[in-house]
Amino acid sequence: MAVQARGKFTRAQIVRAAAAMFDNRGYDGASLSDVVDEAGITKGALYFHFKSKSELASVVIDAQRRISMAALDQIVEEHEISPIGQIVMMSQELGRQIRWEPIVRAGIRLTLELSATSGPQEPYDDWLERCTELLGAAERIGQLVPGIDHARTARFVIGAYTGVQLVSNVYTGRTDLEGRIDDMWAIVLPSFLPEDQHDTIPSLISCRWRPSTGESLLSDDFLDQSS
Amino acid sequence: MAVQARGKFTRAQIVRAAAAMFDNRGYDGASLSDVVDEAGITKGALYFHFKSKSELASVVIDAQRRISMAALDQIVEEHEISPIGQIVMMSQELGRQIRWEPIVRAGIRLTLELSATSGPQEPYDDWLERCTELLGAAERIGQLVPGIDHARTARFVIGAYTGVQLVSNVYTGRTDLEGRIDDMWAIVLPSFLPEDQHDTIPSLISCRWRPSTGESLLSDDFLDQSS
Repeated sequence: MAVQARGKFTRAQIVRAAAAMFDNRGYDGASLSDVVDEAGITKGALYFHFKSKSELASVVIDAQRRISMAALDQIVEEHEISPIGQIVMMSQELGRQIRWEPIVRAGIRLTLELSATSGPQEPYDDWLERCTELLGAAERIGQLVPGIDHARTARFVIGAYTGVQLVSNVYTGRTDLEGRIDDMWAIVLPSFLPEDQHDTIPSLISCRWRPSTGESLLSDDFLDQSS
Repeated sequence: MAVQARGKFTRAQIVRAAAAMFDNRGYDGASLSDVVDEAGITKGALYFHFKSKSELASVVIDAQRRISMAALDQIVEEHEISPIGQIVMMSQELGRQIRWEPIVRAGIRLTLELSATSGPQEPYDDWLERCTELLGAAERIGQLVPGIDHARTARFVIGAYTGVQLVSNVYTGRTDLEGRIDDMWAIVLPSFLPEDQHDTIPSLISCRWRPSTGESLLSDDFLDQSS
């Protein structure tokens, strides 16, 4: 058990060090020997856990996806919040994570570097699926103008968020991201909500998720799970 | 003169070959010897014109910016088109270029690879500036709901377009980009236009630019200009 716990600790330490490195230098700029230095471990320990830079990148992308999905899954359970409010929460929570969580930042950077050409779809699928479902739920309770194509509209939301995030990074290093996501919803929500609910737009824009559980998503246990 | 013309031709050939290579493999995956093979020239000829991969990347990014800006500049001169119609035209023209022009695709890919962390602002500045001005012009003629912040709204438009383009690439290799830009405007324009002009939205969404000049933007002369 002590050995297992130490292994788990070392593995989590490596993942965190690798994330910091990918976050700062991207995939091509990163090297395994920097991870060794950064994590304060031996090369042997690194290779015991991970065979290559590409494996380490997959683990970081996977950890990022699980961190982001765990938040999305919990937001869907906030039953007192309306579907459109939950979509706003999701966008702001993903924005918060990308600004403040190095593992998330690294995972998104690795994903973006691949997306510049034809990257993996999976990182977008998670949010796309939930957003499509929530638009359906919104229509069922009369919170969405009828006749809007849920899947295509969700594609727009995911795309718009991704680009707003990217441009915020280019101009301000994401320091203004929360406000830019507010701007996005101020422009988009009037097209979603029936006319007679437009007075709810300000409170919808201000929706933020505050996790009710005390458990950190970034524990060694969490990072130790395999995909 | 003959020597000069040949130099110009070789230079343009190198830029086109480099663009094809950056488009397919990105900055880190590209190598100068592949450019030599692709352009069908000697290493000496390449190094006579360009000192390094990084210089070649700058030239491609610069050519892409000039191609895109030339279109934006000409669209602003389409005086019979309303300001909002011109913004729609710009987004669709940039979408057309990124889908069909290898130099543009390469320039955007190189820009995106840099933007994944903190990239250069200039590629976004061009369109941002024009979009901000056009929103001002739209407000002056009553085509924009009063009280909208032009610069922040332009930031949203640029970000949303960038992300829509990126997600379209991930899911369909940009084959559906034109339709996804249509979706974007169907969602965004109702917030821009005063209520009594909402019947003009379908014709605004269908705005496309068809260059009136017969001169190709991608001539050897055009590629030969330095920044």
